[in-house]
Amino acid sequence: MVIVMRSGATPAQIEAAIKHVQALGYRASSIRGDETTIIGVIGDDRPIDPAQFELLDGVEKTVPILKPFKLASRTMHPPDTLVPLNGVKVGGPKLALIAGPCAVESRDQLLEVAHAVKEAGATALRGGAFKPRTSPYSFQGLGEAGLELLAEARAATGLPVVTEATTPEQVPLVGKYADVIQIGARNMQNYGLLTAAGDFGKTVLLKRGMMSTMEEWLMSAEYILARGNGRVILCERGIRTFEKYTRNTTDINAIPVLKELTHLPVILDPSHSTGKWEYVTAVARAGVAAGADGLLVEVHAHPEDAASDGMQSLKPEKFAEMVIQCRQIAAVMGRE
Amino acid sequence: MVIVMRSGATPAQIEAAIKHVQALGYRASSIRGDETTIIGVIGDDRPIDPAQFELLDGVEKTVPILKPFKLASRTMHPPDTLVPLNGVKVGGPKLALIAGPCAVESRDQLLEVAHAVKEAGATALRGGAFKPRTSPYSFQGLGEAGLELLAEARAATGLPVVTEATTPEQVPLVGKYADVIQIGARNMQNYGLLTAAGDFGKTVLLKRGMMSTMEEWLMSAEYILARGNGRVILCERGIRTFEKYTRNTTDINAIPVLKELTHLPVILDPSHSTGKWEYVTAVARAGVAAGADGLLVEVHAHPEDAASDGMQSLKPEKFAEMVIQCRQIAAVMGRE
Amino acid sequence: MVIVMRSGATPAQIEAAIKHVQALGYRASSIRGDETTIIGVIGDDRPIDPAQFELLDGVEKTVPILKPFKLASRTMHPPDTLVPLNGVKVGGPKLALIAGPCAVESRDQLLEVAHAVKEAGATALRGGAFKPRTSPYSFQGLGEAGLELLAEARAATGLPVVTEATTPEQVPLVGKYADVIQIGARNMQNYGLLTAAGDFGKTVLLKRGMMSTMEEWLMSAEYILARGNGRVILCERGIRTFEKYTRNTTDINAIPVLKELTHLPVILDPSHSTGKWEYVTAVARAGVAAGADGLLVEVHAHPEDAASDGMQSLKPEKFAEMVIQCRQIAAVMGRE
Amino acid sequence: MVIVMRSGATPAQIEAAIKHVQALGYRASSIRGDETTIIGVIGDDRPIDPAQFELLDGVEKTVPILKPFKLASRTMHPPDTLVPLNGVKVGGPKLALIAGPCAVESRDQLLEVAHAVKEAGATALRGGAFKPRTSPYSFQGLGEAGLELLAEARAATGLPVVTEATTPEQVPLVGKYADVIQIGARNMQNYGLLTAAGDFGKTVLLKRGMMSTMEEWLMSAEYILARGNGRVILCERGIRTFEKYTRNTTDINAIPVLKELTHLPVILDPSHSTGKWEYVTAVARAGVAAGADGLLVEVHAHPEDAASDGMQSLKPEKFAEMVIQCRQIAAVMGRE
Repeated sequence: MVIVMRSGATPAQIEAAIKHVQALGYRASSIRGDETTIIGVIGDDRPIDPAQFELLDGVEKTVPILKPFKLASRTMHPPDTLVPLNGVKVGGPKLALIAGPCAVESRDQLLEVAHAVKEAGATALRGGAFKPRTSPYSFQGLGEAGLELLAEARAATGLPVVTEATTPEQVPLVGKYADVIQIGARNMQNYGLLTAAGDFGKTVLLKRGMMSTMEEWLMSAEYILARGNGRVILCERGIRTFEKYTRNTTDINAIPVLKELTHLPVILDPSHSTGKWEYVTAVARAGVAAGADGLLVEVHAHPEDAASDGMQSLKPEKFAEMVIQCRQIAAVMGRE
Repeated sequence: MVIVMRSGATPAQIEAAIKHVQALGYRASSIRGDETTIIGVIGDDRPIDPAQFELLDGVEKTVPILKPFKLASRTMHPPDTLVPLNGVKVGGPKLALIAGPCAVESRDQLLEVAHAVKEAGATALRGGAFKPRTSPYSFQGLGEAGLELLAEARAATGLPVVTEATTPEQVPLVGKYADVIQIGARNMQNYGLLTAAGDFGKTVLLKRGMMSTMEEWLMSAEYILARGNGRVILCERGIRTFEKYTRNTTDINAIPVLKELTHLPVILDPSHSTGKWEYVTAVARAGVAAGADGLLVEVHAHPEDAASDGMQSLKPEKFAEMVIQCRQIAAVMGRE
Repeated sequence: MVIVMRSGATPAQIEAAIKHVQALGYRASSIRGDETTIIGVIGDDRPIDPAQFELLDGVEKTVPILKPFKLASRTMHPPDTLVPLNGVKVGGPKLALIAGPCAVESRDQLLEVAHAVKEAGATALRGGAFKPRTSPYSFQGLGEAGLELLAEARAATGLPVVTEATTPEQVPLVGKYADVIQIGARNMQNYGLLTAAGDFGKTVLLKRGMMSTMEEWLMSAEYILARGNGRVILCERGIRTFEKYTRNTTDINAIPVLKELTHLPVILDPSHSTGKWEYVTAVARAGVAAGADGLLVEVHAHPEDAASDGMQSLKPEKFAEMVIQCRQIAAVMGRE
Repeated sequence: MVIVMRSGATPAQIEAAIKHVQALGYRASSIRGDETTIIGVIGDDRPIDPAQFELLDGVEKTVPILKPFKLASRTMHPPDTLVPLNGVKVGGPKLALIAGPCAVESRDQLLEVAHAVKEAGATALRGGAFKPRTSPYSFQGLGEAGLELLAEARAATGLPVVTEATTPEQVPLVGKYADVIQIGARNMQNYGLLTAAGDFGKTVLLKRGMMSTMEEWLMSAEYILARGNGRVILCERGIRTFEKYTRNTTDINAIPVLKELTHLPVILDPSHSTGKWEYVTAVARAGVAAGADGLLVEVHAHPEDAASDGMQSLKPEKFAEMVIQCRQIAAVMGRE
């Protein structure tokens, strides 16, 4: 951390700030400029609350130097983390394709889609049993009955199951049925849930909050990693901006940025990041071209009857086309 | 809801859309324009998934007409809801002043602040025992020990206690000690928590998510109201924007807008909405001038030693000054 | 346009609103719902100020139905517009690759880059002679001397020149030297400039404002088209969001959305949309995979000496690699 | 500026970076931490392009220490700048109230409003003759005829005139009629216009761009100040966010922040910052309570007939009420 003194700070104020740094167990080293003096705080591997310094007389502000995440950082752990999923090592050369309906609605609906996405080449099946919905009047998911249907679909197709937990106490239940526990965008900073998922130990798919910076997202991954669970897959799903023609804005920059910042695998959800099925295939291709390790895609055999997110769901035949196009791009990228 | 047909939609497509509306139990009424045809869907008091219509051939988009919140709506419930808090009816003419430290750190720290804010005229005491923190390495609160200290401070000062619950299972514990259960910005769309707080029955202070629209916020209030708990106080705490000189951007517009949209009381948290104590008093005055029913303010006797949010905490003497200024503004507004 | 009446609107208020619509020369058709009545305003091909209706007694709001752009709309003009540029028809199957330095700094600098990008396969040369800079103390460009150097570089390489005009009165001067007049992000709503560029008649490359919706962007294109100049290329260059790891957020969604909304060609500037050269190639590939008709890329032989934007400039050898990768993706997309 | 080296940077890389700093004429001073080394660059009163350093081997990033604005900075010029306007010194204790229609539409319209706002206590008359409009099909203002009507209204009422220039070449014409030249939000970074207005020498009212940071805004003020024109009034008019119930989000924080950062007067435009007349008075009060030096308000005698911005215009009697309420707040604040 660097402490920036106000331009009119007195020598006594500078001295007091240095003493304060030392009293807290850090080393201090100052650089006197023409307009201002800065003080480097050394040994700040532990998190420091900048308020301790910003509130001293004569201090203008503090500037962080080190990134706040450690276990998720590629600096600390250079090689790619590979997360096994149905024979694919997510983060390695093979694309992971996770597909299925937004919500599990019925046995027939789920099995129809599950077989279709398996046919098209999916790696895993997604489907929500517990659905966080903006309105209390909207369909909230089938709950455990939905989890049972997912298990049945897995048995029928061989596809592992990715499904969401929304509270800490749901984790053991969801984890009993799921191969991958999804933590949704609204819960990215639900720290009780992150901790519970970390403790449970199964692979966690952590979606970005719609309002969260990449740094906050990696800090949330850090919560899971800090519980000793290293199998975390990050999933970009679009952020909220002022643009209204799409439901969210796909932050495509996040793909190469995260591949640099972290060793964790990064996938893209073009369904939520666009909000309209017409744009899903184009943005899925873009994700693969940008270096994403996989895709999470909503597929529904009858989108017009979907209980949620029908507008952004691909029909199975469109999904199959998308897979073909994305594999061609992956091949150009030297992936399988 | 209005269905907008594409400009080249055929009479058969229009006919099919109307049939589809009727098959779902709504009435349909169409208006044929020069460029396009629109179809009004009548009887849509129940929530309708627009995807049911947007995915029909020839349909360009749907446009909602009614607001999605009902119980929180002033249209449905015109008179102001008044929430009792230590002799003040929040939402009525008297300002509610809720003040205290960000986090409960120790007995001495809490009691010193509690007496100081009581002295300055506070209505209630705030203080976090369970703290949601971006970093797993930051101070996470004292937990139940913190709740016990809050109860002690209440006994010592007579101030009711406002404190946060962060998971559904914490609600009974927090509710045992708290007079008002706070739901924080990061948990505004934690529906399990909203439901649990609704069921518990004590007053809920619901903060706005940092990137949530007012409509989403009112939908979250709706989750609480739908459980039969009408004692909800809304708290604006700033939204995330591109501006960097402040931690958040105070959405001052939200005060008059919410007073029109809903009957629930609306207060402002100028500490989080600015992030710097230097700006707290000015923005607190602005909140009162805009019509807020109260304020939620972070106060710490020694901000430079605070375990969290020291930079945005007022010292007790500054808080006392703030109260005087805000009361003068309130008097101009015809409040007490 | 649809007028939505308040839920308690009286029959007299509804009648008055309908009369008002008719008095303005439109037809009115109303739909009476259970909670509210809506009135369709027909014949609104002309722009209507919604205030005329929103301010009537009993009116809650108005909702636009038709898109406000006409000449730029694909509905009005279904076939792709192809803009000729050095043998490429921008908007057709061949990718347009426009590359060069942010600013023209010197004869040597420009010629070195110009030859290098020509070698790598560029379609046209970019370079700024008039530079809009946030600070009055930053390098503002060489002005006409820069334009002369661009003309010399064109003569030496055969590459047409893309360069920016920043005021209406610069248009004739810039247009004398340039093959394509660029209108920068900060000037996207500089209507005097748009009109002057429209009147001048040469091809216009219109960058998206960093704070502008796609609809506003197309309205700005409309200003140029309305002067009878149909040769407009749209260039996405990233929008401003809360994310800080990158200079801007590439709105990759904008590529497929615009290809649907408009017949104009759409290219991507991955240099500004990321702000860091490390991410440019990945995002360039993503742009091509999403369907962009071309790329605008900053290239500098010695980025560490660049007078502006060095951090986002590719070295010529990196650019050559980028071109190879993007062409492979283009081939997969069925482009050349 | 501080240069942050990568955590694995070699001594030779650190040495090279220091040499590079010195070669550019700055002094360098380094601080060696446990994880990383930072280098302070001293003597950077001149603007430095960080790219010169960020592109060196082993450098991770640079961090600015000094603010980029100088002439606008309160550090450089502690006393408040007072800008005379019709007997008020804007920036001093007396509130400046600038009011009038969005656009000058006709002689009758303008004179009616001008007399009404004068009556209610306005300091100056606003009204646009050149209107920047999103659509080429919207009313673009009366041009010089509008300026003549403004001059006539000034003669009739004694109110000085505030009106907008949109291109550099309009400045002499607008300046011939206007007492204060307004630069609108869309033109905040139109540097040719800023320079022309700076050179012309009359008072400039500089509105904030709708997605501009305060720092960028002050840099735009710097363009005017750098031409020797110190009479600049800053006007907050709301920023663009994700919230949709209001046209913009009033950045009320900007008032106290700017009063600290700069010596220039700061006023608020609650008409644009809310977009709906119902909220204008509440937000005007909030602005005064936050410390604004004045208000810029749209007033129209017949908003439902306004050629633009009718929805956000107050009727004269509402404006008169607003003035009374704002003066009561100002009195509490120790203003007149």
